[in-house]
Amino acid sequence: MKIGVFDSGVGGLTVLRELGQHFPSVDFLYLGDTARLPYGTKSPKTIREYSEQVMNFLIDQGVGAIVIACNTASSQVSESEWRGVPVFNVIEPGALVATRKSKSQRIGVLGTRATITSDVYAKKIKKLNPAALVFSQSCPLLVPLAEEGWINDPVTDFVIARYVKPLLENKIDTMILGCTHYPILRQAIQKACGPDVHLVDSGLAICDSISEIILDITGNRKQKGSIHFCTTDLSEHTEKLAQQILKPLVITKTETIHL
Amino acid sequence: MKIGVFDSGVGGLTVLRELGQHFPSVDFLYLGDTARLPYGTKSPKTIREYSEQVMNFLIDQGVGAIVIACNTASSQVSESEWRGVPVFNVIEPGALVATRKSKSQRIGVLGTRATITSDVYAKKIKKLNPAALVFSQSCPLLVPLAEEGWINDPVTDFVIARYVKPLLENKIDTMILGCTHYPILRQAIQKACGPDVHLVDSGLAICDSISEIILDITGNRKQKGSIHFCTTDLSEHTEKLAQQILKPLVITKTETIHL
Repeated sequence: MKIGVFDSGVGGLTVLRELGQHFPSVDFLYLGDTARLPYGTKSPKTIREYSEQVMNFLIDQGVGAIVIACNTASSQVSESEWRGVPVFNVIEPGALVATRKSKSQRIGVLGTRATITSDVYAKKIKKLNPAALVFSQSCPLLVPLAEEGWINDPVTDFVIARYVKPLLENKIDTMILGCTHYPILRQAIQKACGPDVHLVDSGLAICDSISEIILDITGNRKQKGSIHFCTTDLSEHTEKLAQQILKPLVITKTETIHL
Repeated sequence: MKIGVFDSGVGGLTVLRELGQHFPSVDFLYLGDTARLPYGTKSPKTIREYSEQVMNFLIDQGVGAIVIACNTASSQVSESEWRGVPVFNVIEPGALVATRKSKSQRIGVLGTRATITSDVYAKKIKKLNPAALVFSQSCPLLVPLAEEGWINDPVTDFVIARYVKPLLENKIDTMILGCTHYPILRQAIQKACGPDVHLVDSGLAICDSISEIILDITGNRKQKGSIHFCTTDLSEHTEKLAQQILKPLVITKTETIHL
């Protein structure tokens, strides 16, 4: 049985890359809703509607669990199951790791406009530790910069420095990368934050929370798993970018589907 | 009878602003397909499909003509009518004005990835003057920068300088703003190009080509026209940005619709 993973685009592949390396015998079905990408600038109602359509598609394909590898979609889906299938989002593991890692309990969050407006990270963190202080910043330009491939670039450095400045002024010691695209810019973000700020990658964080269910679903299977990469709109640029992000993993099958 | 105007988002409002000021007695129905914005990074097939859906919607609402106020959509719709209704795109008027204005017939084009890949401006210009030389540059970061509101900003200046550099090296004397968002950044683009490069704004260019049909449709009507602003996804940010771009025109009615 396979695991469904989805995102608005290719950003969620940073999560799939971690999952695939942690659980090499699992079959993954990934869906990037590239025809309607990005979700991060859209309204809660539209994001919710798109997420439901994607989850229904994945369940119709027979997945045994769904990983919402998109912070924006995660911010609008609080259910832990959908039509009887377990659903995991990236918010809870990220919040948990951040509260565990932070000494000062002054935590920064970078995310899309929709994720930051939903305030979902602050709410989760406050539940885990009511005394924690959360400082958030929406960063609408980081996804386009990552998609443009300007990874090690003075423009990107400048934009990131501007976004993180108010959070650093609030003396955070831990920063949640609250969008699955951001690990692509991890080095630049670390440089802007300095070595003393701990970065939390939601892709890494989710591996712990999902290991039990994966064992349940796949048992002791030893053979190599596969990666079926679906999008709702496939351009050459997307395909190239996808393979770059997934490295060292390799896509087994590529398909364009209609939702 | 009203005129339908559409774009993937609010960029097309730069065209509507010109149309509304040229033809103040006309009723306009604008549709921004914000739920699926942007079109510029998507594949030709998907852009074509979305454009057809929007044109069908506008015709069902009884418009007498359609203005495709989006270069990306224009690049995939070559028809001059749809279901019997005249259709105007921004490419032809832009190409025409550029060939008329350029002394050296060395013309630059800035656009989204989809518009530049389609090569539609170069093809139109070559039809008008086979001796003209066209130099194109895709600028995926300009729409997000305009949407973020970083209009007079060193980051935007730096990004624009990088995009226009190869075109200036090719000694263009005329530059087509091949995306309806770009007039929002007109000042910054002019600064980067220097005063000797003539900028062509497709919103201004289309007013000439459409005046005859508008007279046909609206006759000698004297009363003040209206602006009905529809989107497929309306956030507070979009509403504010829309009103800013349209100034001095004012939206008469706002509505969210489903395609």
